[in-house]
Amino acid sequence: MLPENSNISWVLKGIGDIQNENRPRPSPKSNEVEIAVKVTGICGSDVHYWVHGHIGDFIVKEPIVLGHESSGIVTNVGRDCKILKVGDQVAIEPGIPCYICHFCKNGQYNLCKDMKFAATPPVNGTLCQYYCCPEDFCVKLPDNFPSLEEAALIEPLSVGVHACKLADLKAGQTVMIFGAGPVGLLAGAVAKASGAVKITMLDVNQSRLDFAKNYVANEIVLAERDIPQGLSSIDFSKRFSQRLLESGIEQADIVLECSGAETCIQTGIYMTKSGGTFVQIGMGKEIVSVPITDIGVREIKLKGTFRYCNTYKQAVQLVSAGLINLKPLITHSFKFQDAVKAFETVKEGKDNVIKVLILGME
Amino acid sequence: MLPENSNISWVLKGIGDIQNENRPRPSPKSNEVEIAVKVTGICGSDVHYWVHGHIGDFIVKEPIVLGHESSGIVTNVGRDCKILKVGDQVAIEPGIPCYICHFCKNGQYNLCKDMKFAATPPVNGTLCQYYCCPEDFCVKLPDNFPSLEEAALIEPLSVGVHACKLADLKAGQTVMIFGAGPVGLLAGAVAKASGAVKITMLDVNQSRLDFAKNYVANEIVLAERDIPQGLSSIDFSKRFSQRLLESGIEQADIVLECSGAETCIQTGIYMTKSGGTFVQIGMGKEIVSVPITDIGVREIKLKGTFRYCNTYKQAVQLVSAGLINLKPLITHSFKFQDAVKAFETVKEGKDNVIKVLILGME
Amino acid sequence: MLPENSNISWVLKGIGDIQNENRPRPSPKSNEVEIAVKVTGICGSDVHYWVHGHIGDFIVKEPIVLGHESSGIVTNVGRDCKILKVGDQVAIEPGIPCYICHFCKNGQYNLCKDMKFAATPPVNGTLCQYYCCPEDFCVKLPDNFPSLEEAALIEPLSVGVHACKLADLKAGQTVMIFGAGPVGLLAGAVAKASGAVKITMLDVNQSRLDFAKNYVANEIVLAERDIPQGLSSIDFSKRFSQRLLESGIEQADIVLECSGAETCIQTGIYMTKSGGTFVQIGMGKEIVSVPITDIGVREIKLKGTFRYCNTYKQAVQLVSAGLINLKPLITHSFKFQDAVKAFETVKEGKDNVIKVLILGME
Amino acid sequence: MLPENSNISWVLKGIGDIQNENRPRPSPKSNEVEIAVKVTGICGSDVHYWVHGHIGDFIVKEPIVLGHESSGIVTNVGRDCKILKVGDQVAIEPGIPCYICHFCKNGQYNLCKDMKFAATPPVNGTLCQYYCCPEDFCVKLPDNFPSLEEAALIEPLSVGVHACKLADLKAGQTVMIFGAGPVGLLAGAVAKASGAVKITMLDVNQSRLDFAKNYVANEIVLAERDIPQGLSSIDFSKRFSQRLLESGIEQADIVLECSGAETCIQTGIYMTKSGGTFVQIGMGKEIVSVPITDIGVREIKLKGTFRYCNTYKQAVQLVSAGLINLKPLITHSFKFQDAVKAFETVKEGKDNVIKVLILGME
Repeated sequence: MLPENSNISWVLKGIGDIQNENRPRPSPKSNEVEIAVKVTGICGSDVHYWVHGHIGDFIVKEPIVLGHESSGIVTNVGRDCKILKVGDQVAIEPGIPCYICHFCKNGQYNLCKDMKFAATPPVNGTLCQYYCCPEDFCVKLPDNFPSLEEAALIEPLSVGVHACKLADLKAGQTVMIFGAGPVGLLAGAVAKASGAVKITMLDVNQSRLDFAKNYVANEIVLAERDIPQGLSSIDFSKRFSQRLLESGIEQADIVLECSGAETCIQTGIYMTKSGGTFVQIGMGKEIVSVPITDIGVREIKLKGTFRYCNTYKQAVQLVSAGLINLKPLITHSFKFQDAVKAFETVKEGKDNVIKVLILGME
Repeated sequence: MLPENSNISWVLKGIGDIQNENRPRPSPKSNEVEIAVKVTGICGSDVHYWVHGHIGDFIVKEPIVLGHESSGIVTNVGRDCKILKVGDQVAIEPGIPCYICHFCKNGQYNLCKDMKFAATPPVNGTLCQYYCCPEDFCVKLPDNFPSLEEAALIEPLSVGVHACKLADLKAGQTVMIFGAGPVGLLAGAVAKASGAVKITMLDVNQSRLDFAKNYVANEIVLAERDIPQGLSSIDFSKRFSQRLLESGIEQADIVLECSGAETCIQTGIYMTKSGGTFVQIGMGKEIVSVPITDIGVREIKLKGTFRYCNTYKQAVQLVSAGLINLKPLITHSFKFQDAVKAFETVKEGKDNVIKVLILGME
Repeated sequence: MLPENSNISWVLKGIGDIQNENRPRPSPKSNEVEIAVKVTGICGSDVHYWVHGHIGDFIVKEPIVLGHESSGIVTNVGRDCKILKVGDQVAIEPGIPCYICHFCKNGQYNLCKDMKFAATPPVNGTLCQYYCCPEDFCVKLPDNFPSLEEAALIEPLSVGVHACKLADLKAGQTVMIFGAGPVGLLAGAVAKASGAVKITMLDVNQSRLDFAKNYVANEIVLAERDIPQGLSSIDFSKRFSQRLLESGIEQADIVLECSGAETCIQTGIYMTKSGGTFVQIGMGKEIVSVPITDIGVREIKLKGTFRYCNTYKQAVQLVSAGLINLKPLITHSFKFQDAVKAFETVKEGKDNVIKVLILGME
Repeated sequence: MLPENSNISWVLKGIGDIQNENRPRPSPKSNEVEIAVKVTGICGSDVHYWVHGHIGDFIVKEPIVLGHESSGIVTNVGRDCKILKVGDQVAIEPGIPCYICHFCKNGQYNLCKDMKFAATPPVNGTLCQYYCCPEDFCVKLPDNFPSLEEAALIEPLSVGVHACKLADLKAGQTVMIFGAGPVGLLAGAVAKASGAVKITMLDVNQSRLDFAKNYVANEIVLAERDIPQGLSSIDFSKRFSQRLLESGIEQADIVLECSGAETCIQTGIYMTKSGGTFVQIGMGKEIVSVPITDIGVREIKLKGTFRYCNTYKQAVQLVSAGLINLKPLITHSFKFQDAVKAFETVKEGKDNVIKVLILGME
């Protein structure tokens, strides 16, 4: 049996090397709560750090705890806390901004340049026994919230909530989503809950599309994976868009691009209605070519999104109200000590893998 | 059997006096279609003209055809029509604006000062065999639209779509609705389809509330009908709001006021969250007292709404997509020749009466 | 000569009783700076507390330092400060919110329920030698900012900036302003800088209007002060509006109500264009009657405003850029020891009094 | 002397071949007015058609009258006209949409797919004696409008008004403009009138920048014309942005791209503040590469603009109110019969050429 002050954590030591380690149990600062982490979802970015040791300019130089999609139970509260109490079940928002910059005070704290985001180097993540964070970055789960497992998915769901908010999605609109992975599916779930009258999803993987069709898509499209030799990506995308239109797939009021692939970005712009909105959510190549004249003469609004802000409460309530069902997305669940298997499962990315959870230390 | 060019119409001849009359069958202008009207819903305003002969400054001076909530089948098209063809089933938008004023060109044609609105004196309504209107004010029903009966409800549904658009209702918000009549229920249906996580409905009639609970409300509140003697309406409303809060009813992000009653307006303002939006939809007293300091220090946005604009297509698609079910609202249906019974049914307003339809001439 | 740690402050001891008192010089907390206050403007609310001992439910129970429109020079910085340094000249934003509630995180910290606002009981104000506040609530004056006197007016200017932001005022619109006192004039200055093509100002005082005409108004209207006996306020306002229209004064896209008077609120609503925006800035009677049917059928947006948030930098830059000239508003200036004379000057409210400043202790 | 029904027009007969021709004088339709054209500005597109015979897919197949920036005096009115009368001086909006499509009814008629735009093949332009158009596409000049010459510039000014509206430009913001030609200068004039506190203009031509500095720019930057060999456009732009930042040029809240050059688009995106708005106004290469990851992680909004809608009245009022001075832009003026010289002057594009006008037939 572990001593009471143990804090077993899954630490990325180097490329491909994740080990559990007993780190000092943290003490909450005056505005913080300590949380016994009960469930952590694995994100593509966790696996990317594990496999590559960096994402863009974010490089793992010192060992860090991974994980940032977590839920848990409050075990201790700092002396100035007023919102939470011991025993509360919470979804944990993993990014803590500076509170005082222009962005923080304007309701855009996701753009704060001093953001400390869990499992983004050099900040430790949540895949540990005990995690401390400001109480205002936890949302207490209401009694009718289904489970702590589903609470771990509030983090990726927030990405969808934020994107649909930026898109200014209104009931009665049509939506096209590129990429049927977890982010695309969750964006679709928010779009559906927001009154989208048609959701078209595109992917290169038929089994993902089949899942999407059962989950939220009204219409699915299998996209070609490869650009034929001799064709530029933009010509491929132009031709693909024309084929879509000829086959009866219509331009959408709102396009949510969740793949990061250049051809999806291009096709997505062509498939946005005149005056409509294209939202870039996925990450891929840094530089892509886009049909700027088309964006101009058809007055398309292309909006970047980055993570989320002020979305957690709404996301929790959408699930509590039964408007979004997260359960079907949870395809795998591992014990805390089997975390490496969870990482491997995500890395392999078999057809039936959507969301993989690691349960808390028992 | 009627001659082919008959156009039997229900005409308001004087107060309390509605008669059917064979009027000349109209010919569509170049931009108009002729529609065989198949279903017409009765609105409170139709009954009000029948009983009182006027609504505010709109006075019935000459006999007019009543009705403005209609659907039908295109029977003829003007020579410049490009959108519709004979045989198309359509929902009819009953207000034709001038097209050229500031409001028409800015996407707010409902504010056009030259609006010609069916069954608003002196403009004839739709309760007749054949009705002509510009083709761009008809929306063709898609194949999966349930029925022409439900198509007649696109008109009152549009009021809800417009109000929720003005309210800028977003998924994850809470909504409180005053008045559980057709407009309140339809506004609730749109709110639900838009992702409202809690819909609280208030009315003075328990049976309406019971219906609302089954239809879209998460929470219902029976309001007192009468202000106790010696109490001003504002003091009554303030006290009522405090009681609501004490009983666990929370302030809402968005309040949709569909009753027009002064105490509902006042209570609705008190029950709007700080920074939230109160939308006035119902019509009642011309002048009411409001807590302006409360509106100020809590930065409430109070928005007037008038009818709707650019809502018909969205409303049709929300129904087609299965996000809104209009069927439960249709409680009564009468043959064309029994129109007077339909008017009487609405006038009596028994508990089980929600929406009353008059079918077209067979 | 005063000891270095003196902190002479003007303290409201009781109704009508303001005295200077040497209070302990404060020490900045880690996130705070200490400021030697150099200029403080007197606001109507300061005088109201002095004369009446309360504003609404805000009651002066313990002696408090008055003043909240101040500028000064940084004399000390807390250990975590990163933005400011000793010697910086700053405009001081006088309200410190909780940083963690829904409103603070959504960019609406003016609605924070835990706001601590200088000179609003029981929070001490800025009319003292040394004042401490979080560095993120000071804005450093750029080199080309005219003077510390003008910097004291950034506070009331912020009210105008906030109101015009809520009004969504765009270049090319017309604006009508009720009340030509400091707030009305400053709202007008922001409207002008924002591209208002016509600014109409109304007041009951001709000399204020004459000032307004020279300052920013394109058109001025002298309003009657008293409602003729036997006339309700709404009938008075309706008649007044009709007279305005008959005399060629047009409805405005945006109405900024800075008087708080019931007849101005009512007239302002009637004088708002259909689809336009009426912003309530002034404070007066708690309950007023409004033409709700007119608000409805003409789709007027009535918005409450409360103080400001995220406006200080914009306000400073508008002055630095020369788009707003604050100097003409500074009509009186008193030495620190003559503060009582400043209060009396504002209380008397003679025609030539617009903004009265109290300079810092020398 | 010409017969009364002459209608001398400047017609593009073929590439490089513009001739005057007496065409039949048109008769206004019932909703149209006939205007004696008094001034026409030459736009780059007019010259492009003259030199190249096409712009993109718009090809001059039949001879067309050129010109679309015109003002004039009403000489005849159709029988249904209600707004204008003979003798009115007007600015002419040159694009007539269908009035009935989704875009027309939503206040975005510039996106109407049936738009008939003067001097865009095959629609005839305004460079003629008499021109007919719907009265709702003319704006009567108020008495204090400076002149018919300046009225001809309402068309390009509208492009700036529209772009600043889409940008949601608010007083207190900073603006960066790429391209100091007529469109850039006019966009700058609108930005200034809207309360921009800093306007930075970039161009490759120093004399244009000098003009811009005198006209509206607070800061000017001479950009390199050529990309050094071996450098990609994106690397050039990244490096250029870094140099700008190092030299003290700051990122702007709003970037208005008026050049259409790929490096300007790229640099403009890098120079947009996080959360800020980049508006594409200029036309150039159809496909450009953009830093999509930067757009994403910094949540930049990239908006296309196309011409304008609902801007003419605002543009006229901004000039009448003295907030925008168009006069300095009018550098050349030619008699009607010397139209070819006007075209040549624009084509040569010497440093001192900004706006070239052709006066009406006398």
